[in-house]
Amino acid sequence: MKDSKIEELIYNLSLNKGFSKKNSERIIFDLITSKDRIVKFKDIINYIEESLSECPICFYYTENQICEICQNSQRDKNQICVVSSISDAHTIEKSNLFKGVYHVLKGEINLNKNKTPDKLTINELLSRVNENSEVILALNSTFEGEVTANFIAGILRKKTKKITRIAKGIPFGGMLDYIDDTTLKIAIKNREKYED
Amino acid sequence: MKDSKIEELIYNLSLNKGFSKKNSERIIFDLITSKDRIVKFKDIINYIEESLSECPICFYYTENQICEICQNSQRDKNQICVVSSISDAHTIEKSNLFKGVYHVLKGEINLNKNKTPDKLTINELLSRVNENSEVILALNSTFEGEVTANFIAGILRKKTKKITRIAKGIPFGGMLDYIDDTTLKIAIKNREKYED
Repeated sequence: MKDSKIEELIYNLSLNKGFSKKNSERIIFDLITSKDRIVKFKDIINYIEESLSECPICFYYTENQICEICQNSQRDKNQICVVSSISDAHTIEKSNLFKGVYHVLKGEINLNKNKTPDKLTINELLSRVNENSEVILALNSTFEGEVTANFIAGILRKKTKKITRIAKGIPFGGMLDYIDDTTLKIAIKNREKYED
Repeated sequence: MKDSKIEELIYNLSLNKGFSKKNSERIIFDLITSKDRIVKFKDIINYIEESLSECPICFYYTENQICEICQNSQRDKNQICVVSSISDAHTIEKSNLFKGVYHVLKGEINLNKNKTPDKLTINELLSRVNENSEVILALNSTFEGEVTANFIAGILRKKTKKITRIAKGIPFGGMLDYIDDTTLKIAIKNREKYED
Protein backbone atom coordinates (compact mmCIF):
# COMPACT_ATOMS: atom_id res chain seq x y z
CA MET A 1 0.00 0.00 0.00
CA LYS A 2 1.24 3.46 -0.90
CA ASP A 3 1.50 5.28 2.40
CA SER A 4 3.52 8.20 1.09
CA LYS A 5 0.91 10.95 1.53
CA ILE A 6 -0.07 9.88 5.03
CA GLU A 7 3.60 9.48 6.02
CA GLU A 8 4.23 12.99 4.69
CA LEU A 9 1.35 14.36 6.79
CA ILE A 10 2.66 12.58 9.90
CA TYR A 11 6.18 13.86 9.24
CA ASN A 12 5.01 17.44 8.69
CA LEU A 13 2.97 17.42 11.88
CA SER A 14 5.86 15.95 13.87
CA LEU A 15 8.05 18.93 12.90
CA ASN A 16 6.06 21.09 15.33
CA LYS A 17 7.22 21.49 18.91
CA GLY A 18 5.43 19.08 21.24
CA PHE A 19 4.67 16.48 18.55
CA SER A 20 6.47 13.16 18.44
CA LYS A 21 6.09 10.95 15.37
CA LYS A 22 3.89 8.40 17.18
CA ASN A 23 1.86 11.20 18.65
CA SER A 24 1.29 12.84 15.22
CA GLU A 25 0.18 9.49 13.83
CA ARG A 26 -2.44 9.05 16.55
CA ILE A 27 -3.70 12.60 16.12
CA ILE A 28 -4.17 12.27 12.36
CA PHE A 29 -5.87 8.86 12.53
CA ASP A 30 -8.07 10.06 15.38
CA LEU A 31 -9.18 13.10 13.37
CA ILE A 32 -10.13 10.85 10.42
CA THR A 33 -12.35 8.77 12.73
CA SER A 34 -14.07 11.70 14.42
CA LYS A 35 -14.51 14.56 12.00
CA ASP A 36 -16.50 16.64 14.52
CA ARG A 37 -13.23 17.06 16.42
CA ILE A 38 -11.73 18.75 13.36
CA VAL A 39 -14.16 21.66 13.85
CA LYS A 40 -13.01 22.15 17.47
CA PHE A 41 -9.41 21.87 16.35
CA LYS A 42 -9.90 24.57 13.75
CA ASP A 43 -11.55 26.83 16.33
CA ILE A 44 -8.46 26.60 18.52
CA ILE A 45 -6.09 27.34 15.63
CA ASN A 46 -8.24 30.26 14.45
CA TYR A 47 -8.36 31.74 17.93
CA ILE A 48 -4.57 31.59 18.19
CA GLU A 49 -4.20 33.18 14.75
CA GLU A 50 -6.73 35.96 15.26
CA SER A 51 -6.67 36.81 18.97
CA LEU A 52 -3.26 35.93 20.38
CA SER A 53 0.02 37.65 19.66
CA GLU A 54 3.33 38.50 21.28
CA CYS A 55 3.69 41.46 23.62
CA PRO A 56 5.95 44.01 21.84
CA ILE A 57 7.81 44.67 25.13
CA CYS A 58 8.42 41.22 26.65
CA PHE A 59 7.26 38.79 23.89
CA TYR A 60 4.95 36.91 26.27
CA TYR A 61 1.54 36.07 24.79
CA THR A 62 -1.19 38.69 24.89
CA GLU A 63 -4.80 39.14 23.81
CA ASN A 64 -4.40 42.92 23.69
CA GLN A 65 -1.58 45.18 22.50
CA ILE A 66 0.61 45.11 25.63
CA CYS A 67 0.42 41.95 27.80
CA GLU A 68 -1.26 42.01 31.21
CA ILE A 69 2.03 41.54 33.05
CA CYS A 70 3.72 44.56 31.42
CA GLN A 71 0.51 46.59 31.93
CA ASN A 72 0.22 45.68 35.61
CA SER A 73 1.47 48.52 37.85
CA GLN A 74 1.92 46.06 40.74
CA ARG A 75 4.72 44.21 38.94
CA ASP A 76 8.31 45.31 39.55
CA LYS A 77 9.59 46.56 36.18
CA ASN A 78 13.16 46.55 37.51
CA GLN A 79 13.18 42.81 37.95
CA ILE A 80 13.41 41.14 34.54
CA CYS A 81 13.27 37.36 34.31
CA VAL A 82 14.82 36.14 31.03
CA VAL A 83 13.37 32.88 29.67
CA SER A 84 13.73 31.12 26.34
CA SER A 85 10.03 30.51 25.59
CA ILE A 86 6.50 31.69 26.42
CA SER A 87 5.97 28.23 27.88
CA ASP A 88 8.78 28.75 30.42
CA ALA A 89 7.40 32.17 31.44
CA HIS A 90 3.96 30.58 31.82
CA THR A 91 5.41 27.87 34.09
CA ILE A 92 7.01 30.48 36.39
CA GLU A 93 3.86 32.63 36.23
CA LYS A 94 1.63 29.74 37.36
CA SER A 95 3.86 29.18 40.41
CA ASN A 96 2.92 32.71 41.62
CA LEU A 97 6.44 33.12 42.99
CA PHE A 98 7.66 35.97 40.81
CA LYS A 99 6.38 39.55 40.92
CA GLY A 100 8.68 41.14 38.35
CA VAL A 101 8.35 41.09 34.55
CA TYR A 102 9.56 38.65 31.88
CA HIS A 103 11.61 38.77 28.74
CA VAL A 104 11.06 35.91 26.28
CA LEU A 105 14.15 35.33 24.12
CA LYS A 106 12.26 33.22 21.55
CA GLY A 107 14.81 30.42 21.58
CA GLU A 108 18.37 29.66 22.65
CA ILE A 109 21.65 30.07 20.80
CA ASN A 110 22.31 26.91 18.78
CA LEU A 111 24.85 27.38 16.02
CA ASN A 112 24.27 23.84 14.68
CA LYS A 113 20.68 24.80 13.97
CA ASN A 114 21.66 28.23 12.65
CA LYS A 115 20.11 29.89 15.71
CA THR A 116 22.47 32.83 16.05
CA PRO A 117 22.14 35.55 18.75
CA ASP A 118 20.62 38.02 16.24
CA LYS A 119 17.62 35.68 15.86
CA LEU A 120 16.76 36.08 19.55
CA THR A 121 15.20 39.17 21.17
CA ILE A 122 18.51 40.21 22.78
CA ASN A 123 18.50 43.77 21.38
CA GLU A 124 15.00 44.29 22.77
CA LEU A 125 16.24 43.02 26.15
CA LEU A 126 19.19 45.43 26.10
CA SER A 127 16.92 48.40 25.48
CA ARG A 128 14.88 47.48 28.59
CA VAL A 129 17.82 47.15 30.98
CA ASN A 130 19.36 50.06 32.90
CA GLU A 131 21.61 50.35 35.97
CA ASN A 132 18.63 49.77 38.30
CA SER A 133 17.57 46.53 36.66
CA GLU A 134 18.05 43.11 38.18
CA VAL A 135 18.19 40.51 35.41
CA ILE A 136 17.39 36.93 36.46
CA LEU A 137 18.53 34.37 33.89
CA ALA A 138 16.04 31.47 33.99
CA LEU A 139 17.31 29.46 31.03
CA ASN A 140 17.31 25.71 30.60
CA SER A 141 20.10 23.78 32.30
CA THR A 142 21.29 22.43 28.94
CA PHE A 143 24.30 23.15 26.73
CA GLU A 144 22.30 25.66 24.65
CA GLY A 145 20.90 27.26 27.81
CA GLU A 146 24.40 27.69 29.26
CA VAL A 147 25.79 29.20 26.05
CA THR A 148 22.87 31.63 25.85
CA ALA A 149 23.17 32.62 29.54
CA ASN A 150 26.90 33.29 29.16
CA PHE A 151 26.41 35.33 26.01
CA ILE A 152 23.67 37.50 27.53
CA ALA A 153 25.50 37.98 30.84
CA GLY A 154 28.56 39.17 28.90
CA ILE A 155 26.58 41.85 27.06
CA LEU A 156 24.47 42.92 30.04
CA ARG A 157 27.41 43.51 32.37
CA LYS A 158 27.98 46.92 30.74
CA LYS A 159 24.44 47.96 31.66
CA THR A 160 23.80 46.54 35.14
CA LYS A 161 25.73 44.85 37.93
CA LYS A 162 22.72 42.86 39.14
CA ILE A 163 22.69 39.72 37.03
CA THR A 164 21.60 36.49 38.73
CA ARG A 165 20.61 33.04 37.58
CA ILE A 166 18.27 30.46 39.06
CA ALA A 167 20.00 27.89 41.26
CA LYS A 168 21.13 24.51 40.00
CA GLY A 169 21.33 21.38 42.11
CA ILE A 170 19.38 18.35 43.27
CA PRO A 171 15.64 18.80 42.57
CA PHE A 172 13.25 18.56 45.54
CA GLY A 173 12.39 14.90 46.15
CA GLY A 174 15.45 13.85 44.12
CA MET A 175 17.10 10.58 45.16
CA LEU A 176 20.88 10.92 45.27
CA ASP A 177 21.52 7.52 43.71
CA TYR A 178 19.38 8.37 40.68
CA ILE A 179 20.99 11.79 40.06
CA ASP A 180 23.43 12.08 37.14
CA ASP A 181 27.09 12.89 37.76
CA THR A 182 27.00 16.40 36.30
CA THR A 183 24.12 17.48 38.57
CA LEU A 184 25.86 15.90 41.56
CA LYS A 185 29.12 17.71 40.74
CA ILE A 186 27.26 21.05 40.48
CA ALA A 187 25.34 20.37 43.71
CA ILE A 188 28.55 19.66 45.64
CA LYS A 189 30.37 22.65 44.15
CA ASN A 190 27.45 24.99 44.90
CA ARG A 191 26.98 23.70 48.47
CA GLU A 192 25.34 26.22 50.80
CA LYS A 193 25.86 27.01 54.49
CA TYR A 194 23.50 24.91 56.58
CA GLU A 195 21.04 27.15 58.46
CA ASP A 196 19.36 25.65 61.56
CA MET B 1 -3.05 37.61 35.49
CA LYS B 2 -6.25 36.17 34.08
CA ASP B 3 -5.19 32.98 32.35
CA SER B 4 -8.68 31.57 31.94
CA LYS B 5 -8.94 31.76 28.13
CA ILE B 6 -5.50 30.29 27.53
CA GLU B 7 -6.13 27.56 30.12
CA GLU B 8 -9.41 26.78 28.33
CA LEU B 9 -7.58 26.50 24.99
CA ILE B 10 -4.95 24.21 26.52
CA TYR B 11 -7.65 22.08 28.15
CA ASN B 12 -9.68 21.80 24.94
CA LEU B 13 -6.63 20.78 22.93
CA SER B 14 -5.62 18.21 25.55
CA LEU B 15 -9.00 16.44 25.13
CA ASN B 16 -7.79 15.09 21.77
CA LYS B 17 -6.07 11.72 21.58
CA GLY B 18 -2.31 12.07 21.61
CA PHE B 19 -2.25 15.41 23.44
CA SER B 20 -1.11 15.67 27.04
CA LYS B 21 -1.72 18.91 28.93
CA LYS B 22 1.97 19.93 28.88
CA ASN B 23 2.16 19.03 25.23
CA SER B 24 -0.91 21.16 24.37
CA GLU B 25 0.61 24.09 26.24
CA ARG B 26 3.84 23.88 24.24
CA ILE B 27 1.96 23.59 20.95
CA ILE B 28 -0.20 26.65 21.61
CA PHE B 29 2.67 28.84 22.81
CA ASP B 30 4.81 27.70 19.91
CA LEU B 31 2.11 28.62 17.40
CA ILE B 32 1.84 32.13 18.92
CA THR B 33 5.59 32.60 18.42
CA SER B 34 5.71 31.34 14.85
CA LYS B 35 2.55 32.21 13.01
CA ASP B 36 3.85 30.83 9.70
CA ARG B 37 3.52 27.38 11.25
CA ILE B 38 -0.21 28.01 11.68
CA VAL B 39 -0.59 27.99 7.89
CA LYS B 40 1.11 24.58 7.61
CA PHE B 41 -1.00 23.31 10.49
CA LYS B 42 -4.18 24.42 8.76
CA ASP B 43 -3.08 22.72 5.53
CA ILE B 44 -2.75 19.41 7.38
CA ILE B 45 -6.18 19.75 9.04
CA ASN B 46 -7.80 20.76 5.75
CA TYR B 47 -6.26 17.81 3.95
CA ILE B 48 -7.61 15.40 6.58
CA GLU B 49 -11.04 17.02 6.37
CA GLU B 50 -11.30 17.11 2.59
CA SER B 51 -9.30 14.15 1.31
CA LEU B 52 -9.24 11.43 3.97
CA SER B 53 -12.15 9.33 5.13
CA GLU B 54 -12.96 5.87 6.46
CA CYS B 55 -13.29 2.89 4.15
CA PRO B 56 -16.98 1.82 4.22
CA ILE B 57 -15.91 -1.85 4.37
CA CYS B 58 -13.08 -1.99 6.93
CA PHE B 59 -13.00 1.58 8.40
CA TYR B 60 -9.29 2.00 7.69
CA TYR B 61 -8.36 5.40 6.26
CA THR B 62 -8.70 5.99 2.53
CA GLU B 63 -8.18 8.74 -0.03
CA ASN B 64 -10.69 7.16 -2.40
CA GLN B 65 -14.03 5.45 -1.84
CA ILE B 66 -12.79 1.95 -0.92
CA CYS B 67 -9.34 1.73 0.75
CA GLU B 68 -6.34 0.32 -1.11
CA ILE B 69 -6.20 -2.78 1.08
CA CYS B 70 -9.82 -3.78 0.43
CA GLN B 71 -9.34 -2.98 -3.29
CA ASN B 72 -6.16 -5.05 -3.59
CA SER B 73 -6.85 -8.45 -5.19
CA GLN B 74 -3.60 -9.83 -3.72
CA ARG B 75 -4.92 -9.54 -0.16
CA ASP B 76 -6.66 -12.56 1.37
CA LYS B 77 -10.25 -11.43 2.03
CA ASN B 78 -10.86 -14.51 4.19
CA GLN B 79 -8.32 -13.40 6.79
CA ILE B 80 -9.75 -10.50 8.78
CA CYS B 81 -7.59 -8.84 11.42
CA VAL B 82 -9.76 -7.01 13.99
CA VAL B 83 -8.13 -3.93 15.57
CA SER B 84 -9.50 -1.13 17.72
CA SER B 85 -8.09 1.84 15.80
CA ILE B 86 -6.74 2.95 12.41
CA SER B 87 -3.46 3.55 14.22
CA ASP B 88 -3.21 -0.14 15.24
CA ALA B 89 -3.98 -1.31 11.69
CA HIS B 90 -1.31 1.09 10.40
CA THR B 91 1.25 -0.35 12.86
CA ILE B 92 0.58 -3.92 11.63
CA GLU B 93 0.53 -2.73 8.01
CA LYS B 94 3.95 -1.09 8.31
CA SER B 95 5.42 -4.37 9.61
CA ASN B 96 4.54 -5.98 6.24
CA LEU B 97 3.75 -9.22 8.06
CA PHE B 98 0.04 -9.52 7.29
CA LYS B 99 -1.47 -10.17 3.88
CA GLY B 100 -5.15 -10.35 4.83
CA VAL B 101 -7.57 -7.45 5.40
CA TYR B 102 -8.45 -5.38 8.47
CA HIS B 103 -11.54 -4.46 10.40
CA VAL B 104 -11.27 -1.30 12.53
CA LEU B 105 -13.72 -1.42 15.47
CA LYS B 106 -13.41 2.32 16.19
CA GLY B 107 -12.79 1.81 19.89
CA GLU B 108 -13.12 -0.79 22.62
CA ILE B 109 -16.01 -1.63 24.93
CA ASN B 110 -15.79 0.60 28.02
CA LEU B 111 -19.03 0.84 29.96
CA ASN B 112 -17.59 3.48 32.32
CA LYS B 113 -17.11 5.76 29.34
CA ASN B 114 -20.49 4.80 27.85
CA LYS B 115 -18.72 2.96 25.02
CA THR B 116 -21.26 0.16 24.47
CA PRO B 117 -20.89 -2.56 21.78
CA ASP B 118 -23.44 -0.82 19.51
CA LYS B 119 -21.03 2.15 19.21
CA LEU B 120 -18.39 -0.07 17.61
CA THR B 121 -18.45 -1.44 14.05
CA ILE B 122 -19.38 -4.96 15.23
CA ASN B 123 -22.44 -5.32 12.98
CA GLU B 124 -20.33 -4.39 9.96
CA LEU B 125 -17.78 -7.03 11.03
CA LEU B 126 -20.51 -9.69 11.34
CA SER B 127 -21.74 -9.00 7.82
CA ARG B 128 -18.20 -9.62 6.47
CA VAL B 129 -17.63 -12.95 8.23
CA ASN B 130 -18.71 -16.33 6.81
CA GLU B 131 -17.74 -19.95 7.53
CA ASN B 132 -14.54 -19.57 5.45
CA SER B 133 -13.28 -16.53 7.36
CA GLU B 134 -10.40 -16.60 9.81
CA VAL B 135 -10.80 -13.76 12.30
CA ILE B 136 -7.62 -12.67 14.09
CA LEU B 137 -8.32 -10.57 17.18
CA ALA B 138 -5.48 -8.04 17.53
CA LEU B 139 -6.83 -5.97 20.39
CA ASN B 140 -4.88 -4.25 23.14
CA SER B 141 -3.76 -6.39 26.05
CA THR B 142 -5.76 -4.24 28.49
CA PHE B 143 -8.96 -4.77 30.46
CA GLU B 144 -11.03 -3.06 27.74
CA GLY B 145 -9.23 -5.04 25.03
CA GLU B 146 -9.99 -8.34 26.80
CA VAL B 147 -13.66 -7.47 27.32
CA THR B 148 -14.01 -6.51 23.65
CA ALA B 149 -12.22 -9.64 22.42
CA ASN B 150 -14.46 -11.88 24.56
CA PHE B 151 -17.61 -10.14 23.41
CA ILE B 152 -16.70 -10.38 19.71
CA ALA B 153 -15.50 -13.99 19.95
CA GLY B 154 -18.84 -14.91 21.56
CA ILE B 155 -20.86 -13.46 18.69
CA LEU B 156 -18.56 -14.69 15.90
CA ARG B 157 -18.57 -18.33 17.02
CA LYS B 158 -21.95 -18.81 15.32
CA LYS B 159 -20.46 -17.71 12.00
CA THR B 160 -16.96 -19.23 11.89
CA LYS B 161 -14.86 -21.72 13.83
CA LYS B 162 -11.57 -20.01 12.96
CA ILE B 163 -11.13 -17.32 15.58
CA THR B 164 -7.58 -16.63 16.78
CA ARG B 165 -5.90 -13.93 18.78
CA ILE B 166 -2.36 -12.58 18.72
CA ALA B 167 -0.06 -14.21 21.27
CA LYS B 168 0.62 -12.74 24.69
CA GLY B 169 3.86 -13.16 26.62
CA ILE B 170 7.29 -11.65 27.21
CA PRO B 171 8.11 -9.06 24.52
CA PHE B 172 11.29 -9.60 22.47
CA GLY B 173 14.23 -8.15 24.36
CA GLY B 174 12.19 -8.17 27.58
CA MET B 175 14.15 -8.66 30.81
CA LEU B 176 12.44 -11.16 33.10
CA ASP B 177 13.13 -9.17 36.25
CA TYR B 178 11.45 -6.07 34.81
CA ILE B 179 8.32 -7.89 33.60
CA ASP B 180 5.12 -7.42 35.63
CA ASP B 181 3.50 -10.36 37.40
CA THR B 182 0.45 -10.60 35.13
CA THR B 183 2.58 -10.88 31.98
CA LEU B 184 4.83 -13.43 33.68
CA LYS B 185 1.80 -15.50 34.77
CA ILE B 186 0.42 -15.46 31.19
CA ALA B 187 3.85 -16.31 29.74
CA ILE B 188 4.24 -19.34 32.02
CA LYS B 189 0.65 -20.52 31.44
CA ASN B 190 1.01 -20.16 27.64
CA ARG B 191 4.43 -21.88 27.52
CA GLU B 192 5.21 -23.48 24.16
CA LYS B 193 7.05 -26.68 23.23
CA TYR B 194 10.73 -25.95 22.71
CA GLU B 195 11.71 -26.60 19.07
CA ASP B 196 15.42 -27.17 18.34
